[in-house]
Amino acid sequence: MDDAEVRAIAAALAAGDLRCGARLITRIERGDEGLMPLLQALYRQGGRSRVVGITGPPGAGKSTLISRLVAVWRAQGQRVAVLAVDPSSPFSGGAVLGDRVRMSAHVFDDGVFIRSMASRRHLGGLARAAGDALVVLDAMPWDVVLIETVGVGQNETEIVRHASVVLLVQTPMGGDDVQAAKAGITEIGDIFVVNKSDHLRADATVRQLQAMIELTQRLHPDRGWQPPVLKTNAVDGQGVAELAVRIDQCFEHLRRHEGTTRARQRTRLRHRVNEVLSDMLARRLREDEDPALEPQIAALLSRETDPYAVAAGLLARIG
Amino acid sequence: MDDAEVRAIAAALAAGDLRCGARLITRIERGDEGLMPLLQALYRQGGRSRVVGITGPPGAGKSTLISRLVAVWRAQGQRVAVLAVDPSSPFSGGAVLGDRVRMSAHVFDDGVFIRSMASRRHLGGLARAAGDALVVLDAMPWDVVLIETVGVGQNETEIVRHASVVLLVQTPMGGDDVQAAKAGITEIGDIFVVNKSDHLRADATVRQLQAMIELTQRLHPDRGWQPPVLKTNAVDGQGVAELAVRIDQCFEHLRRHEGTTRARQRTRLRHRVNEVLSDMLARRLREDEDPALEPQIAALLSRETDPYAVAAGLLARIG
Repeated sequence: MDDAEVRAIAAALAAGDLRCGARLITRIERGDEGLMPLLQALYRQGGRSRVVGITGPPGAGKSTLISRLVAVWRAQGQRVAVLAVDPSSPFSGGAVLGDRVRMSAHVFDDGVFIRSMASRRHLGGLARAAGDALVVLDAMPWDVVLIETVGVGQNETEIVRHASVVLLVQTPMGGDDVQAAKAGITEIGDIFVVNKSDHLRADATVRQLQAMIELTQRLHPDRGWQPPVLKTNAVDGQGVAELAVRIDQCFEHLRRHEGTTRARQRTRLRHRVNEVLSDMLARRLREDEDPALEPQIAALLSRETDPYAVAAGLLARIG
Repeated sequence: MDDAEVRAIAAALAAGDLRCGARLITRIERGDEGLMPLLQALYRQGGRSRVVGITGPPGAGKSTLISRLVAVWRAQGQRVAVLAVDPSSPFSGGAVLGDRVRMSAHVFDDGVFIRSMASRRHLGGLARAAGDALVVLDAMPWDVVLIETVGVGQNETEIVRHASVVLLVQTPMGGDDVQAAKAGITEIGDIFVVNKSDHLRADATVRQLQAMIELTQRLHPDRGWQPPVLKTNAVDGQGVAELAVRIDQCFEHLRRHEGTTRARQRTRLRHRVNEVLSDMLARRLREDEDPALEPQIAALLSRETDPYAVAAGLLARIG
């Protein structure tokens, strides 16, 4: 891709060419390395969209909640893109179709762009691909980009980490479930949502989450922002307007506390560099024609060396 | 960990010290880097266990099937370790407990070692940890090590790739589901199992899988081994003895076709080096005190450079 092509595509994206954006995301899904010069240019010019991450267990009502949030933002005149990342197996591909159906309220609104994304590439490839897709979406005139993942496992954590503000959606649940869900989740959430607020256990779940958050705050007193726990009922829209207000407040907080925000951005960029580098490494090591590693592979086969020594040797060369 | 300690632990493992093995796997789960000298020594002395991977969607009956296979191997006097790797979110931790209950038939048999493994570490950390755990298990007197993952997504594929022989367990399903499940799975499976063979659609599923395998074989004519499709009913044990025979045949095939086997091993070792290297990289980039990357992070923040350029620069240094 030469400079002229990069400039032409960047201009098309800036002008809001939806088909151009969609085609680029398809190429990203396929792992097309030819996009690199474009992604580099877009990153360097980018940083305008407000990126919101949303995650939570399957069945928590994320898609309905997203549809409601999109409606609130559209009523404010904001243009919104939704990137639904499905890191799950081919066996559960059906969920994405379900999401599309639930999002159908926005199908005829060209101020809304909805795209699901999957990748059959190696481990780590999907998180990198999601980050690349965000670079493309950020180059289009979207005010808000919502990135959704299912579950709160390690993959999902990596993916929502691309966002500036992360929503964690929970359903009302018993005490043991909250305990099981505890590890890690309070670290990544900026706003907690207990959806299906008409459920018997909703208030108890709110209190348990609040207790968990207080504990996390004591461990990280420098964090500043106190993550709120909100109740919503996405089916009838209850609590969604307040959620949108809280998201705005969180972005406002990030603007006012530049020191903390910079520290978070640095961490995010370290992750991003690692993600891209790991993906590049995986591609290179996979290319059987690459001769650089061959003598070491032979020594591994005969067990004269070990994968740890070979990896440490390669790492040392990075400096 | 000094040389004397490495030798003492290696000797304990070789003597079949179960508690020592279990403790090491716990340290691996926690990401304890101090184990590196031990893992290096164990890898260089290792390579004895026959490692079988088993994967398939949730509810396919993998755990019951494993319990039956273990019984067959135990009746042959073989010592068996089962490593159940659960890459899913904290929300679905319950499945592991269920597996433990189903495996309870072997609880009082010290020729069987059952261990589930999870990791809250970053993306890629679990695949590396599973590979490390296999190094420990291989150093113990297990004739067979079974590594189980749930689902056939990208993570699971990475994890069963550590095995020499991979079983893919399916349930009888409709035509569309097989289509959806198709991509990628025939590439990694050496033996296909349609469990719940009393189901109405069992024979149709067998035929569909056979058609998919034939297509894959035509794409990879050098593969040699023709993956069989077997029907089992794990609940009553039907077909399990034949499955065990076919696993033996697959290992026998690997022994006889050294050229193909070496090529597979080389690919596996490339993956393994990449996995360990990615994990090491992730740790290093995560350490905020590491100053090497700081000037580049500052340039990333101001968007004078981009993550692709920084990653490519680091990669170039590997040579």
